Amino acid sequence: MTLPAALLETLHTSFGADVSTAEAERLAYAYDNSRRNALPDAVVFAREHAQIETLVQACRSHRIPVIARGRGTNTTGATVPVDGGVVVSFERMNRILRIDPDNRFAIVEPGVLNGDLQRALAPHGFFWPPDPTSSPWCSIGGNLACNSAGPRTVKYGSPRENTLGLRAVAGTGEGFRCGTYTSKGATGYDLTRLLIGSEGTLALITEATLKLTPKPTGLRTLRAMYRDVNSAAHAVARIMAQPVTPCALEFIDDVALKLAHDHGGDSVPLAGAMLMIEVDGEPDTLPSAVEAVARAARGDGLEELRVAETTEETQALWSARKALSPAQRTISPNKINEDVVVPVSHLPELVAGIRALSRKHDVLIVTFGHAGNGNLHVNLLPRDEAERERAHACLAEVFALVISLQGTLSGEHGIGLVKREFMPLALAPSTLTLMRNVKAAFDPDGILNPGKLLP
Amino acid sequence: MTLPAALLETLHTSFGADVSTAEAERLAYAYDNSRRNALPDAVVFAREHAQIETLVQACRSHRIPVIARGRGTNTTGATVPVDGGVVVSFERMNRILRIDPDNRFAIVEPGVLNGDLQRALAPHGFFWPPDPTSSPWCSIGGNLACNSAGPRTVKYGSPRENTLGLRAVAGTGEGFRCGTYTSKGATGYDLTRLLIGSEGTLALITEATLKLTPKPTGLRTLRAMYRDVNSAAHAVARIMAQPVTPCALEFIDDVALKLAHDHGGDSVPLAGAMLMIEVDGEPDTLPSAVEAVARAARGDGLEELRVAETTEETQALWSARKALSPAQRTISPNKINEDVVVPVSHLPELVAGIRALSRKHDVLIVTFGHAGNGNLHVNLLPRDEAERERAHACLAEVFALVISLQGTLSGEHGIGLVKREFMPLALAPSTLTLMRNVKAAFDPDGILNPGKLLP
Ligand SMILES: Cc1cc2nc3c(=O)[nH]c(=O)nc-3n(C[C@H](O)[C@H](O)[C@H](O)COP(=O)(O)OP(=O)(O)OC[C@H]3O[C@@H](n4cnc5c(N)ncnc54)[C@H](O)[C@@H]3O)c2cc1C
Ligand SMILES: Cc1cc2nc3c(=O)[nH]c(=O)nc-3n(C[C@H](O)[C@H](O)[C@H](O)COP(=O)(O)OP(=O)(O)OC[C@H]3O[C@@H](n4cnc5c(N)ncnc54)[C@H](O)[C@@H]3O)c2cc1C
Repeated sequence: MTLPAALLETLHTSFGADVSTAEAERLAYAYDNSRRNALPDAVVFAREHAQIETLVQACRSHRIPVIARGRGTNTTGATVPVDGGVVVSFERMNRILRIDPDNRFAIVEPGVLNGDLQRALAPHGFFWPPDPTSSPWCSIGGNLACNSAGPRTVKYGSPRENTLGLRAVAGTGEGFRCGTYTSKGATGYDLTRLLIGSEGTLALITEATLKLTPKPTGLRTLRAMYRDVNSAAHAVARIMAQPVTPCALEFIDDVALKLAHDHGGDSVPLAGAMLMIEVDGEPDTLPSAVEAVARAARGDGLEELRVAETTEETQALWSARKALSPAQRTISPNKINEDVVVPVSHLPELVAGIRALSRKHDVLIVTFGHAGNGNLHVNLLPRDEAERERAHACLAEVFALVISLQGTLSGEHGIGLVKREFMPLALAPSTLTLMRNVKAAFDPDGILNPGKLLP
Repeated sequence: MTLPAALLETLHTSFGADVSTAEAERLAYAYDNSRRNALPDAVVFAREHAQIETLVQACRSHRIPVIARGRGTNTTGATVPVDGGVVVSFERMNRILRIDPDNRFAIVEPGVLNGDLQRALAPHGFFWPPDPTSSPWCSIGGNLACNSAGPRTVKYGSPRENTLGLRAVAGTGEGFRCGTYTSKGATGYDLTRLLIGSEGTLALITEATLKLTPKPTGLRTLRAMYRDVNSAAHAVARIMAQPVTPCALEFIDDVALKLAHDHGGDSVPLAGAMLMIEVDGEPDTLPSAVEAVARAARGDGLEELRVAETTEETQALWSARKALSPAQRTISPNKINEDVVVPVSHLPELVAGIRALSRKHDVLIVTFGHAGNGNLHVNLLPRDEAERERAHACLAEVFALVISLQGTLSGEHGIGLVKREFMPLALAPSTLTLMRNVKAAFDPDGILNPGKLLP
């Protein structure tokens, strides 16, 4: 496909030097962290809202796909232009427009990096809770479009709980605002939350009003080692059933620990399973909070519980978690990275079930992740082509297991290209039909990010 | 209008004794707390999900309106069957299906009363944060449909932040489930939040999975009296700009205090304005939390700050707030009850502006409410017909003021019948068009609660 000349002209007029059809540029925007790829016909770099209206209107009139892109760090192929079209990158539309501590909100353009925002908020004593590990390299627009989360979500919620309002352009080409500048509102349908997690398939976000949270001044880190994954999973359920909610409750299984140890060295402990726990609050409240969480962490199978007293000790405790990503990449460049979620009390069954599937299909699987939300990264690490095929068969059974435990396909990575075939496992036909109706309400010609999210 | 015989037959078959076309019953379900009224053609009392599918399908095939009703405590005419049709009351579908403290959720039928749920949760050490003052008499279905909130929302959020999933029947007649049983999820569009606040115009909710919060075991109450509304409003902004978020931050202006005093007696203090503040947490953390909030409450215009030491003292401190509702009713049975919301730092301008409008239109106005969210109840209290007309003119200017201060029409009561004509003040045509498209996606024939929410 080459783009119609009239469309290209419109793009040049609106975007000036910020449009490219050069092969090199198109290649650079053909793929994302999923490693899938497909060439777009053009790439444009947005700088302001009005350009997005022009872009979508023009593409709509020619029935050309428009694919929003933040920094391409998503793991699901959500930015891969499978049907060609125009990729619109928001990386140059990255101003923090306002930080308003009195009203606990910030207004940002979508290309602002999560890490840059956090840094700008820190002097005001606030933070924005969503904290994907990719924070230094991923954009707020991407965070919102995927409902991306991280360790802190267990206490502070995901983008859906931390966004007040949006400005956007629907697939119709019409710009609109939704939501409020206030911390509550009951004025019509909640289009804000509808856009959050919609992966660029309903509207392109051009501005976001984010709800800020005061940053507690104290933080304590605990590490608990367990005899086996089952006792660690039970400890998670105990911790979540008592009133002090930790601000991180991360789980790492024995296979992952072994990997991290082999890669990261002796500072990484070996055990049946490990929990990393963080508790935050005002400094004088921390000792009792730590004690409450530690009490819940103790129980059958606990082998060691350590509380870090210094920054160095804290860093040392986190070393296993840090070593994990590079370790996995070394073993399997083709790892299949899932982020299933189940109710916390079903974690023991999930972990046991995955263990059984790993044996059955003879595939190396590590599990770790945000256990406080019941959100586990299930990483299948095939080392060769045969194992890769077995891994795919295994994956379908992992999802079936998750659904049978009242869980769902994704806790934070979203659906994108790679998981959409599994959507009917998680959602009944009537729910999918409504989602398709909603899609048509925003994007009647289906030009926004085609081939994503809905099967 | 009388209902088609075939429809009535379907209703009788499906609802048995739980359907009525008797005048007395129809009269009883003709109005709600808005005091507007219009007769329905029939009233049915649901007991299970399948009945709702039958009802909506049958009504759809005859193009007959269906109006969901919890307990009719809403203040906006949201349940008044303006075009006749069938009122479906959920008052008999009121079972708590499951309380799952380990996973921090409860599954309920929509007719469960908010207060009954809180009572059932208490022994488990949990609560559901939304706490409208009407809690003993209003249903969870109504709370969800209006995104109803209360004092605790400042710290714990509204239904949108406290609901995991729903079961419902769309205007198409199709039943569906949306959301998760987990505390996070990124699997498709967020239909759950879309239904919350949709006032029965998109789908009828038949089951809800509610996110529970551990109930802090300690609570302290503070009362701060100020020289004038302006200094109190500034104190609110100061309190919200520091890290300890109170679990209630209520404002009462001088006019309201005077009213409550005249009605409730000398135990109600007189002042320029009053803040009622509650701080919760684990008991040993309370002293420092109270100190942090008290520090912020102090400042120019503070005349007295009291911290309750006993239950009796706490009750005494709340007496002014308690006396307020009956006092208003005595003065003006026709009070116009608004619940506008602005960013917290604009409260001083809002209060001053309302004061000016009260003088300009010569209408008695009291303001009080959930100041921590910037959500003020602006009650116009016309004492006769002439004043009533002036009040309506005044109201339009109140809304215009609110919008000019980056606020919106409703913080928690919703739009319903009485505020929908003002929607174009708050929302641009493009946003309203998208909302209409969403409505059509769920309810293509417009049979669900016609005449509400959208202008
Ligand atoms: C090392 C690493 C660690 C990670 N850790 C986490 C983690 O802890 N938690 C987590 O949740 N994710 C994690 N991720 C995944 C990824 O970083 C997140 O999904 C992130 O939010 C994507 O942001 P992005 O700017 O890269 O978006 P992109 O990948 O560019 O886009 C993601 C989606 O958002 C859409 N989009 C982007 N901008 C807009 C816009 N302005 N309007 C509408 N739609 C838009 C795109 O169309 C696409 O569907 C990780 C990824 C990596 C590589
Ligand atoms: C004294 C008093 C104090 C109040 N205080 C507060 C307060 O502090 N905060 C606050 O927010 N509100 C308050 N309200 C307003 C009111 O109580 C709330 O809006 C409440 O949530 C309504 O619940 P209900 O069961 O009475 O619903 P109803 O009034 O019966 O219905 C309200 C709306 O919900 C829809 N609905 C009901 N059930 C369903 C269902 N199952 N599926 C789909 N739609 C449904 C209806 O169609 C209607 O649009 C107060 C009211 C009174 C009378």
